[in-house]
Formats: sequence, structure tokens, C-alpha cells
Amino acid sequence: MIFNQVWQGCRIHNGIESEPFDASVPGNIQKDYAVAHNFGDVHWADNCEKFRDLEDDFWEYRTTLKYTANKGEKVFFVSNGIDYIYDVFLNGECILSDEGMFHKIELELTDKLNATNNTLTVQIHPHPKRKGSPMGTRDEADHSCKPPVSYGWDWNPRLLISGLWQDAYIETRTSAYINNCEVFYNLSDDFSKADVKVSIDCAHNCTFELFDADGNVVYSGQELAFTLDSPKLWWCNGQGEPYLYTYKVSNAEYSIFGTVGFRRIRMLRNIGAKDPKMFPKSRYDAPFSLELNGRRVFMKGSNWVNPDIFWGDITRDRYDEVLTLVRDAHMNVLRMWGGAAVAKRDFYELCDKYGIMVWQEFMLACNLYPNDDKYLTTLESEARAIITGLRHHPSLVLWCGGNELFNGWSGMDDQSLPLRLLDKLCYELDRERPFIKTSPLVGMGHGCYVFADDNVMGGDVYYTFQHSNCVAYTEFGVPSISSEEVLRATIPEDELFPIRETKSYILHHAVKAWKTQSHACVPIIESYFGPANSLSELIDQSNFLQSEGYKASFEEMRKQAPHCSAAINWCLNEPWKTAANCSVIMYPANPKPAYYAISESLRPVLFSARIPKFDWNAGEVFKAEIWMLNDSPEAADGEVSVSLKVGENVIHLLDWKNVHTPAGKNLQGAQVCCVLPNAEGAKDMTLILSSPDGKGSEYRLLYKEKLNITKPKVLNM
Amino acid sequence: MIFNQVWQGCRIHNGIESEPFDASVPGNIQKDYAVAHNFGDVHWADNCEKFRDLEDDFWEYRTTLKYTANKGEKVFFVSNGIDYIYDVFLNGECILSDEGMFHKIELELTDKLNATNNTLTVQIHPHPKRKGSPMGTRDEADHSCKPPVSYGWDWNPRLLISGLWQDAYIETRTSAYINNCEVFYNLSDDFSKADVKVSIDCAHNCTFELFDADGNVVYSGQELAFTLDSPKLWWCNGQGEPYLYTYKVSNAEYSIFGTVGFRRIRMLRNIGAKDPKMFPKSRYDAPFSLELNGRRVFMKGSNWVNPDIFWGDITRDRYDEVLTLVRDAHMNVLRMWGGAAVAKRDFYELCDKYGIMVWQEFMLACNLYPNDDKYLTTLESEARAIITGLRHHPSLVLWCGGNELFNGWSGMDDQSLPLRLLDKLCYELDRERPFIKTSPLVGMGHGCYVFADDNVMGGDVYYTFQHSNCVAYTEFGVPSISSEEVLRATIPEDELFPIRETKSYILHHAVKAWKTQSHACVPIIESYFGPANSLSELIDQSNFLQSEGYKASFEEMRKQAPHCSAAINWCLNEPWKTAANCSVIMYPANPKPAYYAISESLRPVLFSARIPKFDWNAGEVFKAEIWMLNDSPEAADGEVSVSLKVGENVIHLLDWKNVHTPAGKNLQGAQVCCVLPNAEGAKDMTLILSSPDGKGSEYRLLYKEKLNITKPKVLNM
Repeated sequence: MIFNQVWQGCRIHNGIESEPFDASVPGNIQKDYAVAHNFGDVHWADNCEKFRDLEDDFWEYRTTLKYTANKGEKVFFVSNGIDYIYDVFLNGECILSDEGMFHKIELELTDKLNATNNTLTVQIHPHPKRKGSPMGTRDEADHSCKPPVSYGWDWNPRLLISGLWQDAYIETRTSAYINNCEVFYNLSDDFSKADVKVSIDCAHNCTFELFDADGNVVYSGQELAFTLDSPKLWWCNGQGEPYLYTYKVSNAEYSIFGTVGFRRIRMLRNIGAKDPKMFPKSRYDAPFSLELNGRRVFMKGSNWVNPDIFWGDITRDRYDEVLTLVRDAHMNVLRMWGGAAVAKRDFYELCDKYGIMVWQEFMLACNLYPNDDKYLTTLESEARAIITGLRHHPSLVLWCGGNELFNGWSGMDDQSLPLRLLDKLCYELDRERPFIKTSPLVGMGHGCYVFADDNVMGGDVYYTFQHSNCVAYTEFGVPSISSEEVLRATIPEDELFPIRETKSYILHHAVKAWKTQSHACVPIIESYFGPANSLSELIDQSNFLQSEGYKASFEEMRKQAPHCSAAINWCLNEPWKTAANCSVIMYPANPKPAYYAISESLRPVLFSARIPKFDWNAGEVFKAEIWMLNDSPEAADGEVSVSLKVGENVIHLLDWKNVHTPAGKNLQGAQVCCVLPNAEGAKDMTLILSSPDGKGSEYRLLYKEKLNITKPKVLNM
Repeated sequence: MIFNQVWQGCRIHNGIESEPFDASVPGNIQKDYAVAHNFGDVHWADNCEKFRDLEDDFWEYRTTLKYTANKGEKVFFVSNGIDYIYDVFLNGECILSDEGMFHKIELELTDKLNATNNTLTVQIHPHPKRKGSPMGTRDEADHSCKPPVSYGWDWNPRLLISGLWQDAYIETRTSAYINNCEVFYNLSDDFSKADVKVSIDCAHNCTFELFDADGNVVYSGQELAFTLDSPKLWWCNGQGEPYLYTYKVSNAEYSIFGTVGFRRIRMLRNIGAKDPKMFPKSRYDAPFSLELNGRRVFMKGSNWVNPDIFWGDITRDRYDEVLTLVRDAHMNVLRMWGGAAVAKRDFYELCDKYGIMVWQEFMLACNLYPNDDKYLTTLESEARAIITGLRHHPSLVLWCGGNELFNGWSGMDDQSLPLRLLDKLCYELDRERPFIKTSPLVGMGHGCYVFADDNVMGGDVYYTFQHSNCVAYTEFGVPSISSEEVLRATIPEDELFPIRETKSYILHHAVKAWKTQSHACVPIIESYFGPANSLSELIDQSNFLQSEGYKASFEEMRKQAPHCSAAINWCLNEPWKTAANCSVIMYPANPKPAYYAISESLRPVLFSARIPKFDWNAGEVFKAEIWMLNDSPEAADGEVSVSLKVGENVIHLLDWKNVHTPAGKNLQGAQVCCVLPNAEGAKDMTLILSSPDGKGSEYRLLYKEKLNITKPKVLNM
């Protein structure tokens, strides 16, 4: 039986204890303190900086235990995770000292309890900061398993949190308690049979029952190895039903429930990934083509970041509202970016349910994690907990050591022991699931993160990706400025417009986030549109670029299939109210226009145009290739009529009839072409791919009526 | 006490037993049979084909045991390795069925022995051949740990062997027997201390004594953990002394001896290996810069292949004569190519002694090894034996999964479970030693394997490597035709000249070995020299190309340091008498001219020229950069006078005085330049870098007196 407790918090600053304050569990104790001390809305202006003073303090959660235990029952203190270094005291005696927020603790208290009046204290140590590391940077976290994101990122404020971020409670258990159940299976090559093995951790005999999605019993017994004929397979979004079986494990006193999804995952070499042609020859590109149940599936999705700066606050509902948006956008994969690492259990359960595949990284990102024993020991303990805790989820398709570790700003490489350790643990505990040490690997691409830049190939994202040849695009971003509503909730009135280097804009990542002008990127916007007259005009222009930029990128990558196997943009969501970001869903779950644009681009079947660039001039020869894209498991038919609307001019370019694409194949059609007319007053033009049955698309492009074929000025930011 | 046995062999063909024949142990039973049945010299003509009939037979080694055991002694059958699938029978009872040639067996017989007249039989199964694999190809070995080389390679005949290839004997042991001793250590960061831990596997207490190279005791005691102050370090050839300590482990009855070399190895990212500049960005190149005792060491060496088609015959002397050649050529590293895998213990002991670093591959090469459980189980057993058996050797600096596994002709990749398993085992058992899954990795280069070819960048090897930018060249080859003496010992008179597609030349790899014309590559030779008038002229031309080609390649790679960290040619030696090969030492230990040329190029300090190409014409502008190369651990001084000798003309080009290079650094000097004179009758010319103290070099180049600036015809082979 579970007994939730009432907790009080206490801040210990230089040895001096604060007044106690109410502490939420799960939660983050710095937030509890901020509420008690009226820090105000963390999203507003520079309020987030008030947390800087709290970084090096100790914190305590305290409770006087409330529970009842029957004779013979054992009493446990259970927590699914405590962030990050901590001691647990019972009646003043230290009963556990531990490190790492991702492993569960189950502390038996039975023999240590008084008859009445027991106090339990969880003391949280200051956030780990490596001695000698540059103050206020993520380097401080480079010798620990504390996720580095809250040490400051270009979309996350510096705001360090800790505490009882997962459920924590007292539980009484008899000897019949079921500690754990895991269901393992082997699918036959033709998927016609599943050899199931159930592992139950319980001192008493249990009965295992397996139910199909309609609640029919498909197996029941105490024998824990059996064969299931014709298992219904779990498919990702867009490829079939994410079919889940339910199981129940029970004995006379307890029962627990869980789900099983039957599917086979393999990571294959990309089709067309060839050896280098000339000597001296290197290797071919890293394999990154996902096969689900024998079918290669193009991964289309996004990078997920922690959905709240206060991880402890995140609830199942919070996950659900973003994950339904993911599903509705026809995405089938989320990369769980390494700097924030592992979500709560609800997240993975919802991904199982919605058919969203999960690429799970460990908590390493953009740092040089060391080969030393202390770090490796903590990493092993955390990784074991993560792997065994998540491996039963059918949605989980890939383990990854962490983010951008084989790049200059990290400095790790193939020989780094932390990554060899993670590979080893994944092999031992979960070897059927693919593992990569980091992203990007050879052949994969990260970036760019602007609509156009001299540091990318050519000018804009249209050109860049049409001239790239990656096996997978696993990060690419186009930023936009958040809605006026968000800006007015975060930026003081006198800083609002023009967007410039003010304190609030800097803190909310509109400027100086990554490069000087990101993520608002006003010079890029102005290079296309000239100076904006108002904040709302600037926001519209920015979201126009983001929407069309993402559309052009995602659709280009789909056209590069099967050599290219993934289009995963940076990023989906954000942990707080940013003023500008590459995200397509504003905090907490408000879609930007780009979200809807991407949803269109990711429809299983659509007509799509490959347009060489974004900006066009009257008199220029406009060209575009017309394609039918189909990543669905069925053949598709359709027809399309292509026209270009420039001001009042509608130029009919093509009728393509009786178009047929086999399942999972794209078809390249004709190239359309016309000289752009002079359309007075027009500032944009639209290429319209009209199709009677919802497969049409529209592309809004920049148009200038004066003939000016020089390239728009693009600044190197 | 050890009792060697007298063995009889027996071939079992379709269930029918042959007459018994004498069997050598260690040895290969097919060779014993061939001797008994007068197959003749295996090197001659097509004699090697006689072994084809023996491939699918069973074989037996039989002996009537001769030994004496005192009361209380146990009796063991010991073998250091049995090739490949086998059963052991004692008095007709099967006491072991096993697979894999690289693990030791120690079978206790004590309680199974009769008072007299015990027979021991080792039955060897047919060579593994995967069902359904193309007959007569290395693919037959792609589901086993049998080294694939003897299934046929472009320098190894198809000639399958098996049997008791390592020592095998009866041993009696008391309870005081010392099963094993391993010495582990941690060097302090400044190398001033070694924390030593000794692991002794013995039921009785033992004393451990450590001696320096002069025989002085530096530690003696029963305490198995101690600190050694100021340990003398083991260095590779050219960097210092390969200093070895000796140890003795003893108790009242037994003593065993071993050596320890103290050194630290790390594999670092190459200097100048940078992130890709443009988005979308991939990763940087694989780290391949070896650091020995805190000093980056340029790896210069060669690829070692099995030195005999009959592995069982190889003795310590055979290793020694080749390894002294390696040392004398200033080489410091050998890559133990994966297809042949692991040598006998003597090899590694000699490498320890001579300071030759060993890059050890497992027995995978150019095949797609599967993810299946049976194969993984055998691989794990073999790999554990290999790792624990070799990890104490200071010369061993790198583990590698196998050869060219991430290329199209193999088809494995980062996800392949055999390679993840090997990484895991190396991490568990020997994590301080670097591990790579295969060669080449990204940034490393294999090839080319001809002097000039359209499939390589530009024309000849001079151009190719001057226009390559690899972090390491771990295979590159220039073939030559073997000496006339070797040809006359292998090729029947009527086939000798011209070299063409005759049976003997094909079997001895002169034609159709890799490409149609390799390895003799007559069309390439003729493209430079025209048709040869005699065999000896052709051989001279071929060796001229090989010598100068290897010189140009090795010296170019040294000039690319520190970005480039390794120059390791394909290959050093060969397992039998080839008619043509990229090897520089003919079977068994006869240097080709190229061996001496390479020895010159690998001197620690030398003056070297970067010459853009091999072939020159009168009237052309000749150019060369003059360098001083120094990979020694000391600064070097010198002076050089550069001249070009064309026929009778000696053109003085440069005097470079007071040249100083710091330790381990190269120095680029001036470029010399002249118009080539018309020198009647001259067919070659020599660039002479004359230096008073042995640092000079000479480069022989092709010269044509008629002005003809078109590129010589180079065939695409």
C-alpha cells in the first residue's frame, strides 16, 4: 500500500537554514522556494536570474512519516528518482548516500522505524560543478551524470534545479509483493510467432495473463515461457496500428499491469550508401536506415527537449498534449536529445500508444566526459537503470550515447570510455536494439540552424539541402520569433521593438543565443523583406520564413529517400517561453505556424515541388520539379494541376494525371518552368499544386517586381 | 612435468580410414599426409591443388600415452590450440567436443586413465563451410572463427589446413602447480610510479620476484600489490629502449617466468583533424594518433600476414628472422591483419623484445559475419582467450575487430553484433588498450595497390598520396615480381616468359590475383619501359617501380605528420613463394630491393624530397621540395647538397646548411627546380640528396630523352 507524504522544504545557505516551506513531490525544490519567496513568474523578463543565488546551497525535504503497516509487512521508502546528489536520513541517521537522478531507490525502513514519530529527511547536495571549469557554463557538468541542459543552453536559461522530481512515497509490502515483471520475446523471421519469456520478480507464485487490445485473454498460466501465434504487430504512426497487448501479473494479494508491443527493429545500411570510389578508400557511411517489422521506414520527426525547465512539474497530461500534436503532424519519431536525457515513464507509455518511435540518448551532450573511474561508476549505475527501465517499450527504437560528442565543441571520440561503456551495457542488457555512440556519425548531418547563411552550402535552406547528400538529417532548424502574446508575457514593453540586445531578449534567446543574431535572426529577415514597421509584421515575416523553410527542408529530405532515411528537425518544443527559437511548438504546447506547415509536408502521400530557392524576381525563369511522395505502406494514386499565382496572374504550368506511386516510393514528375511576370504590388507568389483528394500543396515564395537578379544580401552571422 | 607424445595421423575419407602416417605436433595434418603421400614441393607449379581433395575429410591424431605420474599428481592433456572443430577421445570415450583454434585446452584425465595402455585420439572435423556459400570462396568461412585466409586470398593459395597447430602434450601436476600469473599495473600520470598488482592462479602460496634487465631484484615478496618507483619504460623501436623486467613466481615445487614492460598507450585524435566546415555537418575523423608514454609516435610499419601456409610449422626462429628485418628497417609497428589473426606466443615475445608495436586484429576479414547466437558464442570464447592471452604484452597497442569490414565487399557495419561483442569484451578485459571495429575507419585510407592506375587519384603513387589527406594510411601497396630464383622454383620453364595467364602464374598470384593484371602488373611496367626483352629485365623494372613507389609513399606520409599518424604498407611478408606480390620480403625471409628502399625511407632522420611524379622528359621543368624528416625523440642537425644526375649531367640545385629539426618534427625547405637537359641514351635520372653524416637520400626516376609531355599510358586494370 502506498502512503503519500506531506513534505516541507528547507534551504541551507552557508549552513544557515531557511524557514520551512511547502514542498511539492514530485517537483523541484528551487521552484517551491521561489513560490514561497515570491520570485514571480519565471518567464517574465529577468526573473529567471533570481535562481542563480540558489545554485550552491543544500536543500532538505522533511516529513514526519504517515502510514500504517500490518503485522509482517515491510516498510519501504520508494522514489523513482532523486535529483542529483543526496543523503537520506531516518530519524537523524543517514541510511543512504547516492548520486544520479535516473535510478529508482527502494529503501527498506522496517527495522529502523520507531513505534511513532518517524522523520525522514532527504538532503540534496549542491549541483555538481567541476572544480576549475568555467563558471556558469555547461562545462561544470562534464564530470557528472547531471543533465547539462539546465546549466544553460541556447534555448534553456541557466536555471539549476534538483530534488524529488519523481514520485516518492512510503510503501508497505507483504512477502507476496511483486517487485517487477518484464516480458521478453523473439519474433520468428516471418513474424508469425512470438516466443515469449516472462520474468517475474516475486517470492510467491504468480499467474501471468496476456490480453489483446479488445481484452480477450490470449494466454493465462503460471508457465512463463510460451509461444504466441500470429501476434499482432506494433507499427509506428503512419505505417499501421501501434498495437499493444496488456498483461496482468497477479497472486493472492497483488496484481500489476503492463503492456507489450511485438515488433522487430533493425538499423540497416542506407540504400545507395556506397564505398568511396577512389583510392585511398575509407569506409562507407554509418548505417541509419530503420527497418520496422521487415519494412524500411523513413523517419520523420523532431528533436524533443525537456518540456519544462522544472522537470519535476511535468505530468502525463503535459506530455499528452505535445505528443498528440506530434502524432497529428504525421511524425513517427522523436529524438530524445542527450542534454536533457530521460523523461518520466508516462512519456514512453504515450509513445507506445501513439506509435511514436523514440530515439533515446543518454545524458551526455556537447561536453568532454572523462575516462575516470568515479564518473564511469555513476554512469554505469544510471545507464543500467535507464536501459532496464525502458527496454520493454516497443516505441524505443535506438539508444544513443549523447549529442554531438564527435565534434570539436565536445571533444570525445570512438575511444572515449564512457561511450564504450554505454555500448557495452546496451549490448549486455538490450542487444537487439541498435546503438550509436553519438549523432552525427559519418554520413549524417546536423545543421544548419538558420534560413540562410554564408556558412551553409549556397544560400538558403532550399539550396543547401538540395545540394547535400546525407544518409540522415538528424538536426536542422529554421528559427522564428514567438507570438506577440508570448513576447508580451516575457519582454517588458520598452524592450519589445525593435528586437535588439536587451537583457530580456538575451535571456529569452532572441539574440546572442547561438550566434550574435540568433534566434531572432533579424538581419536575415531584413535581407529578404527590408526593415519591418512593427513587431507583428516582423513576427509574421519570421514565421513565413520558418514555415516555408521547414517545408522545403522536410520535403527535400523525403525526396532523397531511400538514400536518406531520416528528417528530424531541431527542435519540436521548448522548456519555457522563448522570444525566438527553432522550435515549432511554443511553451507549453502552442503550435507555431510552422507546425501546421510541417504537418502538411509530412502527410503520407502528397504532391510536392522541388523549388531551387526562396526568392524570385520578375523576369526570372522560375523552375520547379513536381513529385509525388508516398511513405505510406500502400500504393497511392492521384492527379495534380500545377499553377503559379503572382499577384493577379495565375499561370497554369502542368496537369499530371494518373499518377501512381507504389507503397513507400516517391515519383519524380516533370519540371515546370515559366518566366516570371511583372506583377505590380505583389510581394510574394504561390506555387499551387492542386489535387482533388487532399494531396495538394502550396508553396509561398518571395517575389520582387523589379528585376534584380543579384542574390539578396545574406549576412554571415 | 611435460611428456611429449608420438602421434600417428589418419585421414578418414567418406568413412574410409587411410594407412596411418607420422604426424608432427605442432603441425598441420594435411601436410603430414602430403609428405607421406609424396605430394611434392607445395610451392612448385600447381602442386598446391592436390590439397583440394582433402578439404572435406575427417582427420585423426592418435597416440598411446607415455608418461609417469607420481602419487597424488593429476594428469592433463594440454594443447595451446587445436584447429578447428574437434573431439578428443580417451580410450574411445569422447571427453571433449570443441570449436576454435585460439583457446587453450587443459583436460584432466586422471580419473579416466587405465593403469596401462591409454590411447588418446583427437579427431578433427572437416573445415567449416557454410551451406549455400559459393564453393571455393572465403564466404565459406563467414559463419565461423576459422581464419578465412586459407580459403584463398590474392596472395595465399586455396589450401585448407587444420590440426594440432600448437604444442600438445601430457602434463602431470601436483597441487602446487602454478596455473597462471598476470601482472597488471597503473602508471602515474608523470610515469614516476607504477602501482603493480599481481594475479597468481595457484592453490599454494607463491613468492613473486621482479628483476630489472640487469637481473637485479627490484621486488620480492608474497604481497601481490606494490609500488615500483621510477619504473624504466618500454619504448618502441626508434623511440627508446624496449625495456623489459622479468618476473619469477615460485613455490616449493614450481616456478614460472615472465616479462613486464611498463608503458602507457592512448589513441588520440589526430592533430589538425577538424570538424567539417560547412553545414550540414558530420563528425570529425576517427582518432588514430598513437601516444606512447605521453609522446605521439608516428607509426611506420607494415601489414603482417601468416608467414607460412602451414601455420603449425612456424617456429620462433621463423618469426625471429622476419622480425629482425622489421626492426632493422626502422619499423615500429605491425598490423596483424585479421584474415590470419593470431600468431603463436613467440611472435609477441619477440615483438616485446624488439620494440615492435602490434596492432592485433581478430580473425574477421572481408566477410559478413552474422549476428547469430552460435557464431557469437564461439567468437566470445575465442576472443576471451585471445585477449587474456595477449594483454600482458607491452608491444600490443591496439585491438581491431578485423579487416575492411565497413566496406562493400564485407557488408558489416557499426551495428553488427560480432563487432559490438568484441568491443565489449575488450572493454571488460582490457579497457586501457584502444579498440577499433575495423580498418579503415572514417579518415583512414586503404589502397591503392598498384604503382599507377586510373582508379586512384591522378596517375602514380607520388601524385596520389600528395593529393590525399588521410589521418592514417594503413594499407597501401606497390607490387613487384619475385626474384628469378623464386620464379624458377615455382613456375615451369615453358610458362616463365612472357608472364601471362598460365596455370602456375595464376596460382602464384602473378595474374588474376586481384585485378586481371595484378600482381605482376605487366601493362603498368610496359607503360613506363616498353616491352621487356627478358624475364630478368622485367623483374628489374618491376622492382625499380616497387622500390621507388614505396619510397615515395612512405616519405610522403611522413611529411603529412602530424595530421597523418601512420604509414603501414600492404604487405610485409608472404606465406609461400608468390610469383608477384606487394610484399617486400619474399617467403620465407628474403628481402626484395624494396625492403632496403623502405629501410632508407624509414630512417629516423633523413633528408627527403617531395617529387611530383615518377616519369620525366627532357625539356620539362623538374621540381622537388626538399625536407628534413625527424621522427626521433631528439633534435637533429644536418646539411644537404641537392643535385640531379641525368646521364652524364650533374646539375647542382641546392645547398641547405645548418638545418635543425626539433625532436619528432619535420622541416620543409626550399623547392628545387631545373629544366631537364637532353641526355642522350639516359633512361633514368637520380635526384641526389647528399649529406655528410648518413642522412642523405637518392631518388631514381624515369627519364625520356625525347620531349614528350603527354602522360604515360596507364591502364585501368
